[in-house]
Amino acid sequence: MAYFRDNIERLEGYVPGYQPKSGNVIKLNTNENPYPPSPEVLKALAGLAPDRLRRYPDPVGNEFRSAAAEVHALTPENIICTNGGDDLLTICIRAFCDKTSPVACAGPTYSLYPVLAGIQDCDYIEIPYRRGNALPAEKLAKTSAGLIIVCNPNAPTASFIQPGEIDKLCAAVKGKTAVMIDEAYVDFADTNCIDLVKKHDNVIILRSMSKGYSLAGIRFGYGIACPELITGLIEKVKDSYNVDVCAITAATAAIKDQQYFKSNVEKVIAERKRLTSGLREVGFDLDESFTNFLFARPPKGRAVQLYHKLIERNIYVRYFDITGINDRLRITVGTPEQNTQLINAVKEILN
Amino acid sequence: MAYFRDNIERLEGYVPGYQPKSGNVIKLNTNENPYPPSPEVLKALAGLAPDRLRRYPDPVGNEFRSAAAEVHALTPENIICTNGGDDLLTICIRAFCDKTSPVACAGPTYSLYPVLAGIQDCDYIEIPYRRGNALPAEKLAKTSAGLIIVCNPNAPTASFIQPGEIDKLCAAVKGKTAVMIDEAYVDFADTNCIDLVKKHDNVIILRSMSKGYSLAGIRFGYGIACPELITGLIEKVKDSYNVDVCAITAATAAIKDQQYFKSNVEKVIAERKRLTSGLREVGFDLDESFTNFLFARPPKGRAVQLYHKLIERNIYVRYFDITGINDRLRITVGTPEQNTQLINAVKEILN
Repeated sequence: MAYFRDNIERLEGYVPGYQPKSGNVIKLNTNENPYPPSPEVLKALAGLAPDRLRRYPDPVGNEFRSAAAEVHALTPENIICTNGGDDLLTICIRAFCDKTSPVACAGPTYSLYPVLAGIQDCDYIEIPYRRGNALPAEKLAKTSAGLIIVCNPNAPTASFIQPGEIDKLCAAVKGKTAVMIDEAYVDFADTNCIDLVKKHDNVIILRSMSKGYSLAGIRFGYGIACPELITGLIEKVKDSYNVDVCAITAATAAIKDQQYFKSNVEKVIAERKRLTSGLREVGFDLDESFTNFLFARPPKGRAVQLYHKLIERNIYVRYFDITGINDRLRITVGTPEQNTQLINAVKEILN
Repeated sequence: MAYFRDNIERLEGYVPGYQPKSGNVIKLNTNENPYPPSPEVLKALAGLAPDRLRRYPDPVGNEFRSAAAEVHALTPENIICTNGGDDLLTICIRAFCDKTSPVACAGPTYSLYPVLAGIQDCDYIEIPYRRGNALPAEKLAKTSAGLIIVCNPNAPTASFIQPGEIDKLCAAVKGKTAVMIDEAYVDFADTNCIDLVKKHDNVIILRSMSKGYSLAGIRFGYGIACPELITGLIEKVKDSYNVDVCAITAATAAIKDQQYFKSNVEKVIAERKRLTSGLREVGFDLDESFTNFLFARPPKGRAVQLYHKLIERNIYVRYFDITGINDRLRITVGTPEQNTQLINAVKEILN
């Protein structure tokens, strides 16, 4: 169409995971948490005064910033609230990247990154992970990137880079390049990179309330960085009112209920172990996952057939066939019942 | 800071209207509706199943698109849902504007437009309104703009351009330039430009649920255009999940309750007339408003003093001192009680 910029015309947009309309399916395709959000979330939403809907929300979401700062032993000035983690990605790419300052990533990784670079009309550099999923830090540091994104744990591979390795990368590009550590799935890993925020002024950590806190529906993410970086992103780049009052209220209640959050995450991790064993037993090739999903190669390269045959049984997973990681299924860890049904269905189909 | 792009470093961010923390004030500074949203909104939010919070929302908000299409006698394919009207502005500037394709507006107008152009690193061209608030259509059409924005009714002047004039502008730049008609305040005017969507493939109309529908807190706006334009904006430029499930639910309930909406708008318009007369009586210079606010010059050029003295009385309005429209107050139409208190306070201060 004549009106769009050339880079937009050329773009193939990002396709979000399929959302089946019927509730009567086993939905293991978009990495949602199988358990409901904290009861405190529902209480907080029910207690929202109508006047709060009528008025503009707090432009920076201070209620949430204070709660998150307490959880992470930081200050509210270290936190930016965003309309899902995707909003933070967009904000950072707009803040740091242009024609001469590309986005650089270790790949394969989250397929939204090149799409966002395309919208910004900046280059996207993807450097392959080294053997054993090691970070290609030297090559990343040598690029002219305006922003390096390390997805950790990585999507869709579910692998994890130790913070020490990322620390070295951040130090190497300090003063030159901002480094985003996309920790959307870190709630399911053993450790994280938050301490790097205190060491380096070029680190921004992305967090999401969608996975560990069971709040994908409310679109709430946040960034953690040094106050100077956060102030720039808030005052100059983000939309004036980027998070709404329902989302701020729900996210604040959720992050305050750490006990519920932790027990929820433990349940998912326990099931992840069981699902990993179950799929390995029937012949899947499958590395350890540090997320709430498994990235698995079915026996005899039958991912696409398996994917379709699972749908016939009302079980939805996600099929991947991209360079370096073809013939794979990405399977969200569900409830114990859902996981058992999945394993049984897979056994039936493979036999 | 070293990491930001130069255009971002240079930028002075947009400053949203002040949100006093105490509830005990008369808040006429951010053009919120003085009446609560439809009771149907509260019912719909209360009925939201916890599972909807846990799952990703519908990426395009079809529930709302259908409801809006019915209200406007269009199809759902004519509608894009956005995270407030601001999100649609950002989406369109990213879709249509870059170094060689500026944003062009008739001014003075909404001060967010040049800020968004600055983030996109594209030029911002502002052509003064002609005498009597007439659209400088010929001059706008002669620019190399990628997007022309006509704020109608205009903020902060509250004036209105007849759809016929805008029609001519759209026809003149068809095939070359997209035209956004920012109708955030149109619920309080006598007519609107929706019919232009059927005539021209380059028209995008912006609507907001913040003003007429009393839902500033939930951040929900929408765009109306031909299906081809809407598809491009949805599939290529907007964030994958830009509106959350609470916002979709609330906005859908609100737009379906047209009876409540209309009676609410009528009340605001009746008060606008009374407030206009009241302020004129004490000597304000004040054109007719087609919005839910008045843009007024106090007698004897005392806007800034009046602004501060009103704050001392816990009454908040907005003070403007920009080229062409200096020494003005922008006053949101409040409830009858609030408006009476404002008029009385102004009388006291001026005497």
